[in-house]
Amino acid sequence: MSDSSSLPIGVFDSGVGGLTVLNALRKRLPSENLLYLGDTARVPYGTKSASSVTRYAEQAATALVERKIKLLVIACNTASAVAVEPLQAIFPQLAVMGVVGPGAEAGCEVTRNNNIGVIATESTVNNQAYQNAILKLNPEASVSAEACSLFVALAEEGWHEGELVERIVDKCLQPLKHRGLGKIDTLVLGCTHFPALKSSIAAVMGEEVALVDSAETTANAVEKTLGQSKLLNLSSEKGEVEFLVTDDPLRFARVATNFFSESIDVGEIQQVDIQHFNTPD
Amino acid sequence: MSDSSSLPIGVFDSGVGGLTVLNALRKRLPSENLLYLGDTARVPYGTKSASSVTRYAEQAATALVERKIKLLVIACNTASAVAVEPLQAIFPQLAVMGVVGPGAEAGCEVTRNNNIGVIATESTVNNQAYQNAILKLNPEASVSAEACSLFVALAEEGWHEGELVERIVDKCLQPLKHRGLGKIDTLVLGCTHFPALKSSIAAVMGEEVALVDSAETTANAVEKTLGQSKLLNLSSEKGEVEFLVTDDPLRFARVATNFFSESIDVGEIQQVDIQHFNTPD
Repeated sequence: MSDSSSLPIGVFDSGVGGLTVLNALRKRLPSENLLYLGDTARVPYGTKSASSVTRYAEQAATALVERKIKLLVIACNTASAVAVEPLQAIFPQLAVMGVVGPGAEAGCEVTRNNNIGVIATESTVNNQAYQNAILKLNPEASVSAEACSLFVALAEEGWHEGELVERIVDKCLQPLKHRGLGKIDTLVLGCTHFPALKSSIAAVMGEEVALVDSAETTANAVEKTLGQSKLLNLSSEKGEVEFLVTDDPLRFARVATNFFSESIDVGEIQQVDIQHFNTPD
Repeated sequence: MSDSSSLPIGVFDSGVGGLTVLNALRKRLPSENLLYLGDTARVPYGTKSASSVTRYAEQAATALVERKIKLLVIACNTASAVAVEPLQAIFPQLAVMGVVGPGAEAGCEVTRNNNIGVIATESTVNNQAYQNAILKLNPEASVSAEACSLFVALAEEGWHEGELVERIVDKCLQPLKHRGLGKIDTLVLGCTHFPALKSSIAAVMGEEVALVDSAETTANAVEKTLGQSKLLNLSSEKGEVEFLVTDDPLRFARVATNFFSESIDVGEIQQVDIQHFNTPD
């Protein structure tokens, strides 16, 4: 076992959505120490430009690397779509993993008719990240993508299910239901907020459409990468989870209950400033 | 006429919502040059802490003052609620005006039964800015405030009216309709995004409730202040409007059509970085 194995896995998100990925990591790798950073002072990323999101991701990664981590997970689809390669170039010694690749993989594994739908934020849809990742894995696939930025607000407000939520979801998904060469049989939830609305999305899409998200496949990919680098924490004790946020911890703790299955004590959340970090040109 | 009278009025907002105030200024003071700054790289402010919002407002004001302005309008309720006094302290030579005071004034002028409702973002409601401003003007008033953060996303997505929007609005306004000592006869739209949903809010509240927003009263207050300082632009030519944004101009130009009545050429929107400004301790 390497000396670095007890270092935490760094997990970065624009805010609270990445907690769904933290859940999956916690379940799959209970011994691992986890250090989560939510950039709540600039959330959301999904309506912002690729260059702004890349810069924010670089600043977040810098803050986590300064605190020593053994692997970095970008647990935000919008940031994963643009920042994996830039971050890997800046931190060549560190494994950097996003959630778009594992999400695309999950979609390709599940589809039977090669018609895959993707719902994500405006930014993720516009830069074609999922479309490209899926076609790379399966060139036969037909991908229909739809931006559902409103779902982020619904998820954060705790509007997860019920007849009204289903009507809103239905209106947003109409274009997806009536587009594409064939009927999709698989829908990738390409934003970490969307699993909160899973039951409503399932009700609208119907039971013949399988919903997949990237949380579990990301946790599997992290386990594999750590194993290959002999960096798995083999301790039998339960790992610790630490939280950093860039805005007031109070709202984070409250909204987090919509996404994380363990309770978070607001006193244990540390506020940090990352906006001053100069990022490399 | 002072030499400074041809300088622009600086107008600052978290993003596009302040364009409703820009509309009112344009209508009331057509000769004035206007310089608008939208902090689209960090929008929205309504779910962020007072200290973060104050810091962002200080950085935005610094950017506008560097370009020379004769008066500063904080055209964002969330920022107005916390940043007017800090900005006035930093820039003592400059008149700094917010939208909360004028909004409270409009509410007090319109109410007949002294029962005033306020809808705003989470941050504006929590820091009691409208409640305090209204009670200062009218100690007899009873104020009921409700956070409607979801309205911001609806307004930006162009979901302004129709049966589904009204049902969403109705759900959000239920607590307000069933609270307070007496029935409110006046509802202050305490977020610059909300006038976009005016017809839906009116349908839900009923015609006996008057809706007021701060855009027009803010424009009146700006005119009065400029007149007192002999800084009104007395030119007979139509003033110019310049736009600065902190993220990609493309999305700003597109979403702006929901809030501004003139067309904006994306090529004329300048992107600026304000996050590096150090603000005074």
